[in-house]
Amino acid sequence: MLGFHDHDADFDNLTSCLSILFNLQKSGFNLKIFLYKAMETTKSSTEEEAFEFEVRKLEISDKRKGFVELLQQLTVCDSISDEAFDRRFEEVAEYGDDHLICVVEDRDSGRIIATGSVLIEKKFIRNCGKVGHIEDVVVDSNIRGKHLGRKMIGFLCDHARAMGCYKVILDCSSDNVAFYERCGFKRKEIQMVNYFGS
Amino acid sequence: MLGFHDHDADFDNLTSCLSILFNLQKSGFNLKIFLYKAMETTKSSTEEEAFEFEVRKLEISDKRKGFVELLQQLTVCDSISDEAFDRRFEEVAEYGDDHLICVVEDRDSGRIIATGSVLIEKKFIRNCGKVGHIEDVVVDSNIRGKHLGRKMIGFLCDHARAMGCYKVILDCSSDNVAFYERCGFKRKEIQMVNYFGS
Repeated sequence: MLGFHDHDADFDNLTSCLSILFNLQKSGFNLKIFLYKAMETTKSSTEEEAFEFEVRKLEISDKRKGFVELLQQLTVCDSISDEAFDRRFEEVAEYGDDHLICVVEDRDSGRIIATGSVLIEKKFIRNCGKVGHIEDVVVDSNIRGKHLGRKMIGFLCDHARAMGCYKVILDCSSDNVAFYERCGFKRKEIQMVNYFGS
Repeated sequence: MLGFHDHDADFDNLTSCLSILFNLQKSGFNLKIFLYKAMETTKSSTEEEAFEFEVRKLEISDKRKGFVELLQQLTVCDSISDEAFDRRFEEVAEYGDDHLICVVEDRDSGRIIATGSVLIEKKFIRNCGKVGHIEDVVVDSNIRGKHLGRKMIGFLCDHARAMGCYKVILDCSSDNVAFYERCGFKRKEIQMVNYFGS
């Protein structure tokens, strides 16, 4: 089989492309493969990125793909033993769709390059409503300009909406307010914290 | 039986109180009852309030004790059918100690006069740490000066600490920052919200 890019042909549009492919087919080439490759050239950059970056739920094998090292870019996160990781993974998995940890995998490198999570809270207020709490959002500092943060926030919001939440909330530093505003969020209240001494 | 406060005796201290009780006993009164009443006068105001107000986990029967009406003081909370209430109660109960809804019951009136909840989030960061999210805190507006809010926040924080959390977080309006500072909290970040349209 011969790949599309192995030819020097200049395909200005799909019509001329198909014409050439038709001639190639008559010459005995495999049309199916060529058509697949040709269709790829008509993809938008978004589609190309969707192919390049997979947004999905965390899998237990993601520890080997740099998931923990990525979290270390966010905050204090010591190395985690395989046993501790697997145990925590199973604990979170027990909550099913009520606690989703999302990752973005770079298909080329096989590395996890972004993550974020959403925890679904079941309330009595708002007609027994639900609220999504977005937590632990981080994008690999080496990957810029791919809108991965926005993709992931979109993924988490879509999940919360599908779970029946009437809102999603998160806490961020003042530096990140503009980013979340671009994602459709608005400032609301003040986060307070009480750290327990060790 | 005769109650302690039915006497006009002026008990300056426990010694004179016991002396009078001893004489009353000789006169045929029931010492046990009198002593119980007398001991109550030596309780601290905190102990009296602990007797007057019970801080405990939400029970399914609390719907009949004004739990929903109390939530209506906090935010939008339509009346909830018994079926919807019971279903949500059971959904929350499935998470056991990972989602605690606390109430304060006034023993005299049998009404729920304060509530708050804490949701335990299991993370990978901070050595597979846990965080408590405090939500939906409200004290009956008719009850003032009893420090019920502070008692309840203490109860929720104690629970989060016992569950192994390294911190508890909450979001509040600027009006409530001073109250939470008195409870041991500090300002941290900015809460952002994304409301989904209906």
